[in-house]
Amino acid sequence: MTTSRTDNAAAAPAAAFWTDLEQALGPNGFSRGADAIPPKYWTDWSGTPPVPPLALLRPRSTDEVSALLRICHAHRVPVVPQGGLTGLAGAAVPVAQGVAVAMDRMQQIEDVNARTGLMTVQAGVSLQTVQEAAVAAGWVFGVDLGARGSCQIGGNVSTNAGGNGVLQNGMMREQVLGLEVVLADGTVLPMLRPMLKNNTGYDLKQFFIGAEGTLGIITRVLLRLRPAPQAKATCMVALPGFDEALAVLARMQARFGNSVAAFELMWSDFVQTSMQWQKLQPAFAQQHPLQALIDVDGKDEAALRAAVEEALGEAMEAGEVVDAVIAQSSEQARSLWKLREAPAEMTAHMHPPVNFDVSLPQVDIGRFAAACRAAFDARWPGHHSLFFGHVGDGNLHVTTDSQTINGEDEALEAVLYGLVQQFQGSVSAEHGIGLHKMPYLGFSRSPQELAAMRAIKQALDPLGLMNPGKVFAAD
Amino acid sequence: MTTSRTDNAAAAPAAAFWTDLEQALGPNGFSRGADAIPPKYWTDWSGTPPVPPLALLRPRSTDEVSALLRICHAHRVPVVPQGGLTGLAGAAVPVAQGVAVAMDRMQQIEDVNARTGLMTVQAGVSLQTVQEAAVAAGWVFGVDLGARGSCQIGGNVSTNAGGNGVLQNGMMREQVLGLEVVLADGTVLPMLRPMLKNNTGYDLKQFFIGAEGTLGIITRVLLRLRPAPQAKATCMVALPGFDEALAVLARMQARFGNSVAAFELMWSDFVQTSMQWQKLQPAFAQQHPLQALIDVDGKDEAALRAAVEEALGEAMEAGEVVDAVIAQSSEQARSLWKLREAPAEMTAHMHPPVNFDVSLPQVDIGRFAAACRAAFDARWPGHHSLFFGHVGDGNLHVTTDSQTINGEDEALEAVLYGLVQQFQGSVSAEHGIGLHKMPYLGFSRSPQELAAMRAIKQALDPLGLMNPGKVFAAD
Repeated sequence: MTTSRTDNAAAAPAAAFWTDLEQALGPNGFSRGADAIPPKYWTDWSGTPPVPPLALLRPRSTDEVSALLRICHAHRVPVVPQGGLTGLAGAAVPVAQGVAVAMDRMQQIEDVNARTGLMTVQAGVSLQTVQEAAVAAGWVFGVDLGARGSCQIGGNVSTNAGGNGVLQNGMMREQVLGLEVVLADGTVLPMLRPMLKNNTGYDLKQFFIGAEGTLGIITRVLLRLRPAPQAKATCMVALPGFDEALAVLARMQARFGNSVAAFELMWSDFVQTSMQWQKLQPAFAQQHPLQALIDVDGKDEAALRAAVEEALGEAMEAGEVVDAVIAQSSEQARSLWKLREAPAEMTAHMHPPVNFDVSLPQVDIGRFAAACRAAFDARWPGHHSLFFGHVGDGNLHVTTDSQTINGEDEALEAVLYGLVQQFQGSVSAEHGIGLHKMPYLGFSRSPQELAAMRAIKQALDPLGLMNPGKVFAAD
Repeated sequence: MTTSRTDNAAAAPAAAFWTDLEQALGPNGFSRGADAIPPKYWTDWSGTPPVPPLALLRPRSTDEVSALLRICHAHRVPVVPQGGLTGLAGAAVPVAQGVAVAMDRMQQIEDVNARTGLMTVQAGVSLQTVQEAAVAAGWVFGVDLGARGSCQIGGNVSTNAGGNGVLQNGMMREQVLGLEVVLADGTVLPMLRPMLKNNTGYDLKQFFIGAEGTLGIITRVLLRLRPAPQAKATCMVALPGFDEALAVLARMQARFGNSVAAFELMWSDFVQTSMQWQKLQPAFAQQHPLQALIDVDGKDEAALRAAVEEALGEAMEAGEVVDAVIAQSSEQARSLWKLREAPAEMTAHMHPPVNFDVSLPQVDIGRFAAACRAAFDARWPGHHSLFFGHVGDGNLHVTTDSQTINGEDEALEAVLYGLVQQFQGSVSAEHGIGLHKMPYLGFSRSPQELAAMRAIKQALDPLGLMNPGKVFAAD
């Protein structure tokens, strides 16, 4: 995969840069030169070719982040912020003329308030640690995704992470009540007041959520937790078509409101492949065009299961559902969910996989998937592509075995993103733009919007030092 | 009440300005001069002294908004956007050297999708019209407030309106899936893609929500509707103190999750005054320090009432609740809610009232209210002040009879906002800054945050033409 990089062609920094850094961070606070920097900091999970940075800085506090940014600003040295390096778009890959700032020494959970469901953490805390601390306090955290053990909350905020809970809880943006951010010149913005309602000028913190490190470094996050559900019902339904899937979703939401926690749709290619890879028993005797996994929260297991059964019965009578299985235990629920876990096997089976993360107007997802498949069939007969997604929130994933398209990954991207543009969708639902989707950003954003984004960037980072060459080309 | 106005001292526009406007809007598209402009456009509900604008422009389309802004930009004429003029902070009051742009000819509901719960409207549609269209499509709209019949959705977005549904549905920001905005130079930003998940660069629309018209004019809004609840239970509880109120809220949220739709707390002064003004029967035989009105959504009336009763029984055993009444019909529910409606009577009874809309870290609201009362008692013995609020979301309202503080409104504001600053609260929870809270913005925002806001303003409106002198002084 090629990427269009625009590294700032900065001159090598003066000797004073290094002595200033040593004074600010201490001799153990940074490593200088490729030999001294572990290769894990050279790239992320996106498969981008590794780039050793000029230096790796490892601050321990907001003051140190502020100091190092002041120094980089004074010496015009580009800065790439790094979280858990699990990003799939390349946003955290270093630039050769700049420093990487790893947040992995800022891992304090500073405060958990069990009464109000608020938690303050440093940006380097892992998502899983946040989730566990929430549960320990009697709450849950609203965002979950596969990289939970490695990804950091600062990175989750910077990419406005999505994952499995979006239908019920929204994206990361909706879990963030406050942020502390350090701007490119070292200015600290303390936007941490713990109020749900705070209309005092622009809601500045919104600007940094999803900015992929191009506007500043997030140092602390005030999180809003969600009440823990007491019971959960899980079911798998067989569906005759996409319109019926939307009808079932609407039916479940009408009945269970915001308690519908997941609605994961899987096309039959995905279902068959997942069963084969994981040696699963089929949930239904026959194959169906689509299957959906549905989770509903409630108060009482038995009553909830009965209510879900009743709703599905009505859906069957209405012709929306052909067959259905309701898990009778949490073990059965886990077993139903296993079918959805094929993505963990893709790297091993798909030579390697070409992954897409797009979103579309919900009503159009079925037509979009059909159009994609037809376009792929026409050009690459025999291609192996899997369609699945968090359809409740408009997010579709498509994964293709690159061997079955003769390694023509870029052509495949052009076909798929072209259709996204045609359907007025988003080329990035939850992974961000980073490096890899920069060529396609214009498919989902007008020139006017891109110009406004550049004006914001220029306003908050006039020297263009923060994560240069990511999201949109500097000009 | 004094205000610090910073009207742009623009010279009178050239003759070409008027011919350009006539060409763009037609002869009926604008009115010129105080005699031709109805006084209702001269001020809003904030009580700010009326200011007739240079002209009142009444565009019928996004194209006309774009054209008029291009013209004002070319002639350096300031622009004040106007919605329903129900704001309480003065943000929509005209400036004498500028034009007012009324959105009341852009009242189309363009699309309602009953299947996906999405609605696209022009900015001038009233909140009530949106609510009714949502219900007609089998959904509900998540924001409600007293001015629903007059306020416009564009104004609701521009002030990030709150109201009664915030605990369950969030502020206006969380109902907005897309926006169309016209910038000061006439550039149209079409940010209307109907996806919940869309991480393609900065989430530009967030910048305009709550910006009070200082960054551009909102012309169209894509709204996300909420599933309609099937049943509702309403109860009134008597509480021994504030900590117990929070314990009950946490207990209800743990049991009913996001189905807790309202948690309105009223201090006993409010309760007594409201009963007296409205000639209501007391809900409880004895007076209590606090009463809370709680609404819970559910599927089945009887089952829900039983579950609420059980939860309240447990709260009584735990000593959190002293007494409780559960409405047995929607009529009884309305009757319980009547107690909360005293604010509609305030203007008639409080000579006039001095209103505050602040928010605080939830755990501190009780201590804050006590500190306020003590400070008022010390300086104005015999003052009549009412404390109440949407405590579930941290929002406290305080209203004082100005006659009982000898008309010393400004001194009262200084005392209360000083305490807000001390408690690290927000001087505006849901009404915005406008003109009236500008002197206190620095109590809730650091100089660094204000500088960042000014940089954003400068980036998107370099000539400073959009709603000048509002939110923060231009410099």
